[in-house]
Amino acid sequence: MWVEAVPNFSEGTDPSFLQRLVERAQRSGVFVMGVEGDPDHNRSVLSLAGLGHLVVEALVSLAELAVTEIDLRRSRGIHPRMGAVDVIPIVPLGPSPMAYAVELTHQLGMRLAQELSLPVFLYEHSARLPKRKNLADVRRGGFEGLATRMAIDPPDYGPSAPHPSAGAVAVGARWALVAFNCYLSTQDLSVARAIARQVRASNGGLVGVKALGLYPKQQGAVQVSMNLVDYPKTTLAQAVEAVATEAARLNVEVIRSELVGLLPLQALLDVAEHFLRLPHLGIEQVVELNLNRAAVQSVEVGHP
Amino acid sequence: MWVEAVPNFSEGTDPSFLQRLVERAQRSGVFVMGVEGDPDHNRSVLSLAGLGHLVVEALVSLAELAVTEIDLRRSRGIHPRMGAVDVIPIVPLGPSPMAYAVELTHQLGMRLAQELSLPVFLYEHSARLPKRKNLADVRRGGFEGLATRMAIDPPDYGPSAPHPSAGAVAVGARWALVAFNCYLSTQDLSVARAIARQVRASNGGLVGVKALGLYPKQQGAVQVSMNLVDYPKTTLAQAVEAVATEAARLNVEVIRSELVGLLPLQALLDVAEHFLRLPHLGIEQVVELNLNRAAVQSVEVGHP
Repeated sequence: MWVEAVPNFSEGTDPSFLQRLVERAQRSGVFVMGVEGDPDHNRSVLSLAGLGHLVVEALVSLAELAVTEIDLRRSRGIHPRMGAVDVIPIVPLGPSPMAYAVELTHQLGMRLAQELSLPVFLYEHSARLPKRKNLADVRRGGFEGLATRMAIDPPDYGPSAPHPSAGAVAVGARWALVAFNCYLSTQDLSVARAIARQVRASNGGLVGVKALGLYPKQQGAVQVSMNLVDYPKTTLAQAVEAVATEAARLNVEVIRSELVGLLPLQALLDVAEHFLRLPHLGIEQVVELNLNRAAVQSVEVGHP
Repeated sequence: MWVEAVPNFSEGTDPSFLQRLVERAQRSGVFVMGVEGDPDHNRSVLSLAGLGHLVVEALVSLAELAVTEIDLRRSRGIHPRMGAVDVIPIVPLGPSPMAYAVELTHQLGMRLAQELSLPVFLYEHSARLPKRKNLADVRRGGFEGLATRMAIDPPDYGPSAPHPSAGAVAVGARWALVAFNCYLSTQDLSVARAIARQVRASNGGLVGVKALGLYPKQQGAVQVSMNLVDYPKTTLAQAVEAVATEAARLNVEVIRSELVGLLPLQALLDVAEHFLRLPHLGIEQVVELNLNRAAVQSVEVGHP
């Protein structure tokens, strides 16, 4: 049974580090679907897919590299983080049930604790405590606040104090999400923050939308950075239109966008349905997908 | 080597006729990717794919059924037509070159002439005369004008007079096109025609766009019916935006759209790039496509 894993590492400035991650993943026999290093966020994200036990093997090997090479006492970035290997989500593909992804996060958590002495917090579908459902809550306070927090709130696996240089890691089974950034025609961070507040679910905006206003200086423009955690409900098209509408109200516009990680095929089809005003667009209506229906469906990104 | 074929039949009111077409195609060992019967246009379109020689075999068998069952002396529709099996385009897939699709159209033309006594006009890349490049020119005058025309303009294969009940057939190798209809919030055909005139290439509009204003009465709304014959240059997104802009100028809007036949994967990716303002979206960025890259590319819809 197949899963996707999207490990996040708190190092995005050294291309050779990324290269070593990719080599390790490939040696473990998993597919490296994507690699993104972001110097502004000082963060790297790999998208892996493969048979569950091979993915766990690869993730242990990648985490070992991160723990060896990254020292959070000396590095920073604009993205909140609590560990050298910061977050490891595992997502069901094809017929794999969520329970299988959860089982893999437990296997992975135990190994990261035993083999690398990392404190492991289980989140989302893997969470054993309600307060650990939400990743943002698990990561609150970041690396700097970790020792204080862990003194009263021990992890699910591993030592009850942070790893001195590598912090702690959040591991969780979840459904796929769409991570998408819209850049605006301004350098005014307050504008991006105002739009993020309007569109995100936590302020009464769109269901399943998490949003932050950020300013990655090397891009020369602020961004509304979004996670669509229920993209079948609030689609990528709806989220981007909402950002564009709020932007217009503030006299700026969306000048370009970027996808972080990969898109589930359904999210792509939803975009075309929405903007083309098609009542339905299915894989049977796209030549290459029609002819590879069985193969495409066998690794279909899972959803509730 | 694989090709797609999109035979058009001048009968769209009898679902059992469609069913018999599908059964014959499947018996010939080709994939039936899509089937569309349109009572308004009195027209059916099949989308087939498979190895070239099997596709030719299937097309001969389908044409035989159409010649047996359709009598153009007794049927009409809003779509111009000159034959019971009216047009048969063949499109290269994967690494198949255009020359291979052209070769297949000659094989097919000879067999339709010999086995079914159909006059065959070769068009587009298969045309042997410059005046037959453009399908609209080949079909001008329709079934009713065929006898007069053929008296001075004999076909490429077959008898020099129309088949009494089945007319003649246009067979041509071409690159894929996107056939797309936008329905408008009006029943006024002159509005659809005015928009079609604005967007189509022949009136100085968008490159590679053919457009007609039509009123399929059962739909309760007029449509701008488009063929995008160079969809990598003028993308589906651009064409739909142009229609929407012209519509707004005439105080109507695009209420829904429909795809006729299938979409090449690249056209789908282009739509998302355009509307999401992504500088690039490739198959490697979509989970299911990334994991099936080789399979998807092996049947990739050809383009110049």
